[in-house]
Amino acid sequence: MIEFGIEKSCTRTGARVGMLKIRGRKIPTPVFMPVGTYAAVKTLSPSEIREVGAEIILSNAYHLHLRPGEKLVKSLGGIHRFTGWDGGYLTDSGGFQIFSLSPLREITAAGLRFRSHIDGSEHFLTPEDVVRIETDIGADIIMPLDIPTPMPSSHAEAEKACVTTIDWATRSKEAWVKTGDVTSLFGIVQGNVYPDLREKCAKALQDIDFPGYAIGGLSVGEEKKTMYEALGFTTGLLPADKPRYLMGVGAPGDILKSVMSGVDMFDSVLPTRNARNATVFVPGGKMSLRNAAHKDDGSPIQLGCSCYACRNFSRAYIRHLFNTREILAYRLATIHNLHYLIGFVTGLRNALLNGKTEEFIGRFEEGGL
Amino acid sequence: MIEFGIEKSCTRTGARVGMLKIRGRKIPTPVFMPVGTYAAVKTLSPSEIREVGAEIILSNAYHLHLRPGEKLVKSLGGIHRFTGWDGGYLTDSGGFQIFSLSPLREITAAGLRFRSHIDGSEHFLTPEDVVRIETDIGADIIMPLDIPTPMPSSHAEAEKACVTTIDWATRSKEAWVKTGDVTSLFGIVQGNVYPDLREKCAKALQDIDFPGYAIGGLSVGEEKKTMYEALGFTTGLLPADKPRYLMGVGAPGDILKSVMSGVDMFDSVLPTRNARNATVFVPGGKMSLRNAAHKDDGSPIQLGCSCYACRNFSRAYIRHLFNTREILAYRLATIHNLHYLIGFVTGLRNALLNGKTEEFIGRFEEGGL
Repeated sequence: MIEFGIEKSCTRTGARVGMLKIRGRKIPTPVFMPVGTYAAVKTLSPSEIREVGAEIILSNAYHLHLRPGEKLVKSLGGIHRFTGWDGGYLTDSGGFQIFSLSPLREITAAGLRFRSHIDGSEHFLTPEDVVRIETDIGADIIMPLDIPTPMPSSHAEAEKACVTTIDWATRSKEAWVKTGDVTSLFGIVQGNVYPDLREKCAKALQDIDFPGYAIGGLSVGEEKKTMYEALGFTTGLLPADKPRYLMGVGAPGDILKSVMSGVDMFDSVLPTRNARNATVFVPGGKMSLRNAAHKDDGSPIQLGCSCYACRNFSRAYIRHLFNTREILAYRLATIHNLHYLIGFVTGLRNALLNGKTEEFIGRFEEGGL
Repeated sequence: MIEFGIEKSCTRTGARVGMLKIRGRKIPTPVFMPVGTYAAVKTLSPSEIREVGAEIILSNAYHLHLRPGEKLVKSLGGIHRFTGWDGGYLTDSGGFQIFSLSPLREITAAGLRFRSHIDGSEHFLTPEDVVRIETDIGADIIMPLDIPTPMPSSHAEAEKACVTTIDWATRSKEAWVKTGDVTSLFGIVQGNVYPDLREKCAKALQDIDFPGYAIGGLSVGEEKKTMYEALGFTTGLLPADKPRYLMGVGAPGDILKSVMSGVDMFDSVLPTRNARNATVFVPGGKMSLRNAAHKDDGSPIQLGCSCYACRNFSRAYIRHLFNTREILAYRLATIHNLHYLIGFVTGLRNALLNGKTEEFIGRFEEGGL
């Protein structure tokens, strides 16, 4: 089981600084979790993931169930030993991926019927199956099967999904209790943009009682304003002493706003996917390394950055590697983006601890961070 | 300029153990040079290239001339600074690549007219241009423009190419002398399978006088027997006190036989290309990590191997990474293959030094190395 404690919280904004304890390791929050869907953070080795400052990786039960299968991971000692990563692992259930990738799916009261996006084979997963899969995989934090709804959805559609999500959360909790609690199961608040549904879901999940709560169904294409309204409303409904995880958010500005709304944990493919498209984070925004302006630029991606890429290579060389499709290009950009984003979150945490939050926000808005 | 000295040579077989000195670094020979066509060894970082034991990388003047251009490399401090690799660099002229990749080419007395394999643009390179390009790139050892001939070629075709190769070698030497000799220009012996042509070429090149000699036009699809006959004949024609470089050979058994014929330097895409196809070197031969036999195999690629891949990961995990096309798969297999092959050459060198050559060959043939 994980432990969680709040070190400091801002009464005015709701922002918090905390400490997660997973497998004996302390993980300061707010925390950004790089995505390693297939039990690997794309392009990186475990030692590089450690070097960029990551403490916990998000993987995906649905994807690992299809390949290589949870039984295989279990037989080889669980996901930490299987992948050589001794930090934390959180597995998403993959419900979101089933909804976005599977060509055919059907929601029944019992569970989710879908076709594999790889070979078209038919699968049926219950909430209990998903807990069992995640326990076999051996992640530290596991997410229950839930029903996200697209933006926009009608109140009726969102309510129907919400009711099923709550029912499945109840069953997931029961299945999880039987496993002996070696992992930590979070509840996922759904409810689309509807305050009454978010409230109903948040309350029901707290009645079931989880070691942590995730906010799902946001950052899926809706307008930012809509997202922050739903987010602000939802965090206020969650218990103060449990970690809060906003799923799928990874842009620096979005993380900043969400932390100020009281979120503790984040994941997103943004830094790693952007990197593979030659887009890197720098103070003031994003930059494409494919841009001809960098053709003969001997300076690093970001002056003063201490990541492996910036310590050793010029923009000109990395641009050349992208132009010739050398894998080292994707690696270097990934290292930089994760180092930048994790450093950004750490900087924000320090600012919150030291009463420098407004200064931090000001510097970020001026393009200085 | 490079320095080269023989530490021990076998009078019976012709095998030699030597020491190359490049930029102040000692490079024991025989030596295998990983290929970094575009100024990057595919999938690896400079620190990993160092960790697998590599001392010198082969890059390609033709490819770097097209992308990113030698002037850019020069303006950023030369290839060592550009790529962050402080070991040795050898550049092939790229004549071989022009012949194998260019859709249209024409050999004139002056040089080589060809179309870029990237955008079809027309280029014309003289031997003098190539020396200038390689000097701009700033490699430690550079190869002159030459004319390889396919296998089989008639004696008349091979002779014509040989005459041009010798003429271009003369012009390359003159152009190189004018550069001030900061790099070291090798001669390349051509002549296809014809002993009289190999002899004519080897003698002519020695009259011109180079700091080292390469054997070109072998390992291009001819039978092994043919290759070793031509190789054995050719090494006997070369001066004992200069390094001998067999171009494009990288299978462990071929390196072994070639070292026994008196070769000092090797390069090949074999270990790196094989790795990206999931084929790894192990004692006794090659193995495909895609094979279902490795599905749940918790053992490393090679028991007892000290490379990063074998120290940290199982066959089952690396197979899973190949199945899900994770870039880490290509990296780990590349690290293992280079570590294996460079370790193999180092082991052979030690055996030659310590009078254990027959034992080494015996163990290799039994599949124990």
